[in-house]
Amino acid sequence: MASSKITFTEDVQLPRGFKAAGSAVGLKKSGHRDMAMIACEPAAVMAGTFTTNQVKAATVRLCMKRLARNGRAIVINSGNANACNGPQGLIDAERMAAATAELIGADERDVFVCSTGRIGVRLPMDIIEPGIRKTAADLSREGGKNASEAIMTTDTKPKRCTARFTIDRKPVTLTAMAKGAGMIEPNMATMLAFFLTDAAVDRSALQDALSAAVNKSFNRITVDGDRSTNDTVLFMANGAAENKTLKPTHPDWAVFVEAINMVAMHLALLMVQDGEGASRVVTVRVKGARSEKDADIAARSVANSLLVKTSWAGDYPNWGRIMDALGYSDAKIAEDRVEIRYDDLVACRDGVYAGTPIEKLKRVVLQRAFTIEINLNLGSGEAVIYTCNCTEEYVRINM
Amino acid sequence: MASSKITFTEDVQLPRGFKAAGSAVGLKKSGHRDMAMIACEPAAVMAGTFTTNQVKAATVRLCMKRLARNGRAIVINSGNANACNGPQGLIDAERMAAATAELIGADERDVFVCSTGRIGVRLPMDIIEPGIRKTAADLSREGGKNASEAIMTTDTKPKRCTARFTIDRKPVTLTAMAKGAGMIEPNMATMLAFFLTDAAVDRSALQDALSAAVNKSFNRITVDGDRSTNDTVLFMANGAAENKTLKPTHPDWAVFVEAINMVAMHLALLMVQDGEGASRVVTVRVKGARSEKDADIAARSVANSLLVKTSWAGDYPNWGRIMDALGYSDAKIAEDRVEIRYDDLVACRDGVYAGTPIEKLKRVVLQRAFTIEINLNLGSGEAVIYTCNCTEEYVRINM
Repeated sequence: MASSKITFTEDVQLPRGFKAAGSAVGLKKSGHRDMAMIACEPAAVMAGTFTTNQVKAATVRLCMKRLARNGRAIVINSGNANACNGPQGLIDAERMAAATAELIGADERDVFVCSTGRIGVRLPMDIIEPGIRKTAADLSREGGKNASEAIMTTDTKPKRCTARFTIDRKPVTLTAMAKGAGMIEPNMATMLAFFLTDAAVDRSALQDALSAAVNKSFNRITVDGDRSTNDTVLFMANGAAENKTLKPTHPDWAVFVEAINMVAMHLALLMVQDGEGASRVVTVRVKGARSEKDADIAARSVANSLLVKTSWAGDYPNWGRIMDALGYSDAKIAEDRVEIRYDDLVACRDGVYAGTPIEKLKRVVLQRAFTIEINLNLGSGEAVIYTCNCTEEYVRINM
Repeated sequence: MASSKITFTEDVQLPRGFKAAGSAVGLKKSGHRDMAMIACEPAAVMAGTFTTNQVKAATVRLCMKRLARNGRAIVINSGNANACNGPQGLIDAERMAAATAELIGADERDVFVCSTGRIGVRLPMDIIEPGIRKTAADLSREGGKNASEAIMTTDTKPKRCTARFTIDRKPVTLTAMAKGAGMIEPNMATMLAFFLTDAAVDRSALQDALSAAVNKSFNRITVDGDRSTNDTVLFMANGAAENKTLKPTHPDWAVFVEAINMVAMHLALLMVQDGEGASRVVTVRVKGARSEKDADIAARSVANSLLVKTSWAGDYPNWGRIMDALGYSDAKIAEDRVEIRYDDLVACRDGVYAGTPIEKLKRVVLQRAFTIEINLNLGSGEAVIYTCNCTEEYVRINM
């Protein structure tokens, strides 16, 4: 098994050639860290995936434009999304890149910028610019931990992990950090994630591997069904490990892909666990759909139903609301074929109550994590979505 | 103006030939009224609209099947939806109709049945059958008020109104009652509504007028984006007023249609006002969309965004979340053309903050009712959706 070749830890260990920093520059009223920087040398091959929202933050547009270049740094601020600020937003984002570039001695076009926080408020450049100087001055080999804290918004804990493995018998590190706890819905939620490796990787192979990993992880989680204007995943591969360039024909390509998938899935699940106000993580698995697309639609309809999610805040195994959400989805449903399981217990068979004692089903729902498995019995389409319950705390956080 | 010909009151006044009752038969643990009955003579021409959910309660299927017949009665229970009960559900619904028919001396196929409450639990026929006897014994010309209370579930107040007008110089009454406060989304929510008139109306003209009125009223409200298995609107027109049969060529047709629209819109707005846990009613008006369909999609995306609805539970005029919800909708948006108004105040113009002091916008959001007007500036499509805020109380009600 390839996985035995990967050492996985829940911390940040910067790969060779990377430095990072995270500092408090005054954007968050709380005084918490609110600016992060990642810099690398040599310049890194870049890959990225971005929000599908038609309204895109200035920083998203900047990153998309620069993606074909080799990256030297990413500068990230939290507390302000720099979204819906018109042409001024782009000017401010470019200024952030230029200020960073000057401090680290790079071409400004090789600096990427991410923002997260409130939409529609101009960036306070009088705080941002000295903040960038302060953060650049803090760049160090040990700064990854601070950086992972500085990108947080409503997150209650930092999200980070590291995979170590060998490519061409050379030790390689893949470390990653992410933020995101609300406005989260499959198709890139209010989330930022940064993947850093010292492996040498072919640009288009890296983009393909990242896109595939994102589809299986970040695009399969939902907290509230709201897709954000700022979602960004960036991948930097600087080649400092001096392996032969990784691509699908490389004998170690599978290990590398597995590491990316492992890291992406780990971060995605951390986001659902940290869903705003959430106390339970629920895996919604649909099988037997007419098609994979139908399975996906059905699973999302259940995972995003406000009535289903609030029912999980209580203790009643309300499978009727799951039937309801399946019924109004655009997926084909035959009511009298639906089976719904709570973990291993059948709650509903042939569309009606299966007779399993409610007290037993209650015990499943009261767990910190459980699985709803839905068999539509119409075909072989399957899909899975990871979600959480919706509590009063969610409303308080977002009021 | 036609409206000057209509006298509108917020009570139930049964038209000639109708009786009603509402009693407590033991379905609700609270001891509140939980069974209603409406009976009429002569038999009434029927019209109806039903949930678009693929999962339909047994009662919905029964009503759809019987709609072409002339109706003698409707029997309604609250506390149990009789949904997802398989073939047994239909047997139980038919038994409710048969029991009612026997007591009022009608053909059982002329009795309609509605249920509302929890999904997936068999009807307790040992409570239902004596309950039907008790309720039938209570039928009276004054029973409309009790009936409107007996159909309530999470509603905090009954919803009812009456329009009086003349057709062929004969006095005619249209009275209606409805229930619904949650699981409400355009396209027929968990709602029941009953329209009763003594006018003589052509069957297909009545169906057309009802469908059109439902599209402009009940299908334009949303509380939580969940469509139910049980939504039903039934219209009984028994012709006791002895007017010439109403249809579009009748000189008084316009007055009749206006009365239906007035009654339907009134009941729909009462539902939003009574939305579970809601404290604010918000009208979301989209104009300038590429098409009417796009306007509708955009308005629903905003009105159903959990982040937008929770922001209305607070006091911050978070127009950025509205931009976000527009952006992820399937409607075409050009970010730099969007204008968003809070009542008369422009919050956002050309996709960016318009400079109106936040304190002024806050005052709009703090009102019991306000309008969000969005101009996409892409065409001439328009749509309106009525919704409410999402508070912690919503979660408590649905846990």
